[in-house]
Amino acid sequence: MKTYQDCIPCFFKQALRAGNIATSNKAKIRQLMNEVEILLEKISWENTPPETGALIYQKIREITGNPDPFQKIKANNIAHALKLYPALKRLVQSSNDPLLAAVRLAIAGNVIDLGVDKKFDLETEIEQIMQKQFAVFDYEFFKRELSSARKILYLGDNAAEAVFDRILMEELGKPVIFAVRGIPVINDITLKEAETIGIDRIAEVISSGSIAPGTVLHYCNQKFIHEFNNADLIISKGQGNFEGLSSVDRSVFFLLKAKCKVIADHIGVQENDILLKGINLQ
Amino acid sequence: MKTYQDCIPCFFKQALRAGNIATSNKAKIRQLMNEVEILLEKISWENTPPETGALIYQKIREITGNPDPFQKIKANNIAHALKLYPALKRLVQSSNDPLLAAVRLAIAGNVIDLGVDKKFDLETEIEQIMQKQFAVFDYEFFKRELSSARKILYLGDNAAEAVFDRILMEELGKPVIFAVRGIPVINDITLKEAETIGIDRIAEVISSGSIAPGTVLHYCNQKFIHEFNNADLIISKGQGNFEGLSSVDRSVFFLLKAKCKVIADHIGVQENDILLKGINLQ
Repeated sequence: MKTYQDCIPCFFKQALRAGNIATSNKAKIRQLMNEVEILLEKISWENTPPETGALIYQKIREITGNPDPFQKIKANNIAHALKLYPALKRLVQSSNDPLLAAVRLAIAGNVIDLGVDKKFDLETEIEQIMQKQFAVFDYEFFKRELSSARKILYLGDNAAEAVFDRILMEELGKPVIFAVRGIPVINDITLKEAETIGIDRIAEVISSGSIAPGTVLHYCNQKFIHEFNNADLIISKGQGNFEGLSSVDRSVFFLLKAKCKVIADHIGVQENDILLKGINLQ
Repeated sequence: MKTYQDCIPCFFKQALRAGNIATSNKAKIRQLMNEVEILLEKISWENTPPETGALIYQKIREITGNPDPFQKIKANNIAHALKLYPALKRLVQSSNDPLLAAVRLAIAGNVIDLGVDKKFDLETEIEQIMQKQFAVFDYEFFKRELSSARKILYLGDNAAEAVFDRILMEELGKPVIFAVRGIPVINDITLKEAETIGIDRIAEVISSGSIAPGTVLHYCNQKFIHEFNNADLIISKGQGNFEGLSSVDRSVFFLLKAKCKVIADHIGVQENDILLKGINLQ
């Protein structure tokens, strides 16, 4: 997905929010805004938003000297989500369609996103998403590919969201490779948080190598590219991964909530719609 | 009022919105965003927001070649407001305190602001503001200064809002000078719209000379500065005028609704609070 006009003010909002989390030094915030202004003059609007996001969060790390501004916030969100884990497992197991319930939960977990300019209430979100109608629902395709799949690649997104991803991975009943970001970017998941959540006990966890808040293939490492090309089924979580991969030429199932108007318009759904959307399906 | 961090993303949103109203040429929009990026690197954050706004809207005029992008919108909003005029006059005249009713209406009219990133419903706004409690209410000071005032200067803001300002000026029962912007900026009022609304039949209409979406004294002409210095009572409408004048060293009564969090925090009120706020009162 390319960069849209409305992404530009949003890039500044994100830089400002992350900058203020990373430092209380107003002069550094001013420097950050100036450098983002210079940076955005030069980017190609053909870039995907996470490609540009990578450059912005790099600036935030450089200028504030803080390599992981969202560390504490990630830890708190993970602790919160882990408290819910047993109840969520019961919710899934007592459901008529545990796989679908787990899919819904995985989307609900995607609300824990600090790149999008919205406050969230996790419990309310879970209640709503468990009932909400899908705007795109390629569930039959998904079940068919799942039934025949031997190698599944699952692309993580936000850190605490992976507590919910873990529940879905447990429901898949197949070996899963779970891919995380190469470095901390916004509140996205890295190897460290994947271990805290215990993903490494139920799946093989690998780093995609991506420094972007999304899966941008030319930022990814060889190991990841190999798994990406050879997986029978790819499950991609969240907006950042969708923005990076929406034009790839292999089948991918995207689980996401359209959290901003730009992405909703791009897909052709309404803001806040939820999707289980497959691309390049046979 | 100085420029706050959160003004920066808002400047880009405004440039984007106004740019898209002024032209459908995507390349020009891209050029506009780049030039605003360059411009914002250089501004002093000690500038008031309308000073920077002036530079941004100048860029919009230059790049799009459209001297008055909001012309049609202003005309439609004025036509809408003029339809309400007779009923609003009756509302004021049938009120226990016609002056206060007219003050409330003048604040309600301030919702017709296309510089702030919000949709509005004029009728609903009027109903709400007529009932709403003031967060700052210097009404007794206001009435005292009004009773002794011989020369009143009234600073207009948005174009259609002046239909409501006219009702208040009619209630003041004193000679009024009504000041408008020097050129079209956002949907602010100029001499042309003041005549459409008939302000020239109930007050002396002058141009402040300001090219900013607010009263920025060093942009203003000598005639305006003379009236500003010699008025017994100054009534200033809206955020833009407040942002430009909040630090002046003479008494001014500001009528406004705090329409963004930045200005609400600056004043120490809540977003959407309404104010009749006097400064430098004796």
